Amino acid sequence: MRRKRFAAMACPIARTLDIVGEWWTLLIVRDALVGARRFDDFRKSGIADNILSARLDLLVREGILERRTYQAHPPRCEYLLTEKGHDLLPVIVGLGMWGLKWTQGPGRAPRFLHTRCENEVSPTFNCPTCGEVMQPGEIRVARRPVDAAEADSELAASATEAASPVVG
Amino acid sequence: MRRKRFAAMACPIARTLDIVGEWWTLLIVRDALVGARRFDDFRKSGIADNILSARLDLLVREGILERRTYQAHPPRCEYLLTEKGHDLLPVIVGLGMWGLKWTQGPGRAPRFLHTRCENEVSPTFNCPTCGEVMQPGEIRVARRPVDAAEADSELAASATEAASPVVG
Repeated sequence: MRRKRFAAMACPIARTLDIVGEWWTLLIVRDALVGARRFDDFRKSGIADNILSARLDLLVREGILERRTYQAHPPRCEYLLTEKGHDLLPVIVGLGMWGLKWTQGPGRAPRFLHTRCENEVSPTFNCPTCGEVMQPGEIRVARRPVDAAEADSELAASATEAASPVVG
Repeated sequence: MRRKRFAAMACPIARTLDIVGEWWTLLIVRDALVGARRFDDFRKSGIADNILSARLDLLVREGILERRTYQAHPPRCEYLLTEKGHDLLPVIVGLGMWGLKWTQGPGRAPRFLHTRCENEVSPTFNCPTCGEVMQPGEIRVARRPVDAAEADSELAASATEAASPVVG
């Protein structure tokens, strides 16, 4: 069963899930963040070779990983995170924090270290306006108001999303 | 094709994806965050009724949404985020920020407002140790060292994950 495409949706969350919403994709990014570079590194997480190949190709095509040849004979390549790939770190951290709090299992989360102070941190969200640390309950999510011109151009692009509930 | 279960893996990121790694699940949480409560609210995002029903049941079973009856005759219920559900906000924010920067499309991300200062914020990660705002490039991810006793108990639980690359 092929899923509905999220790529054209009028929401960047949906568009992100279109790229990284596959079961294994974010775990490959996680492994890259802790230092995996070669095919053999990534397959240690238990992913089947054919799925791993397809996901690595997808991540290269999306510009999240860069494929680099490190040996010519025989040809061997490694996969390095791009800036676009590194920018997924907050998503990975968010998933890890939630999992530590709300799931049961051995507690071997990766450690997140601040490179400037080298201390292990449980990153929190900080409000750049008032400078305070925000708890999840202190962030209100609201639909962005749509102005008329924007609404016209969006109707064609995403009829379903434009009908989402407007609240807040 | 049934996917590999991530629930027993020795990584809270994997365990989180086991619960919320389905394509539609996080979009339902997103809609709940912006105020969707009833079946008809959620279906406006374009999700098929049978998938929506199954995902709402899953989210109730996992304690992310709470089902509450708001009308007895005929019986009608609504779905409210629990604390566990609200705690997914940083993941949603992370996906949204990444999508705004790295995907093309109409820019109708939800707005994230700090409830204390009511200003729209682009949440950043803040290091609680040194107090500075961290850019993704300033967070180093490292495997947590495993001590002998812990390693023994984990081997049975997750043989594949225990073989992950140890770097950093």
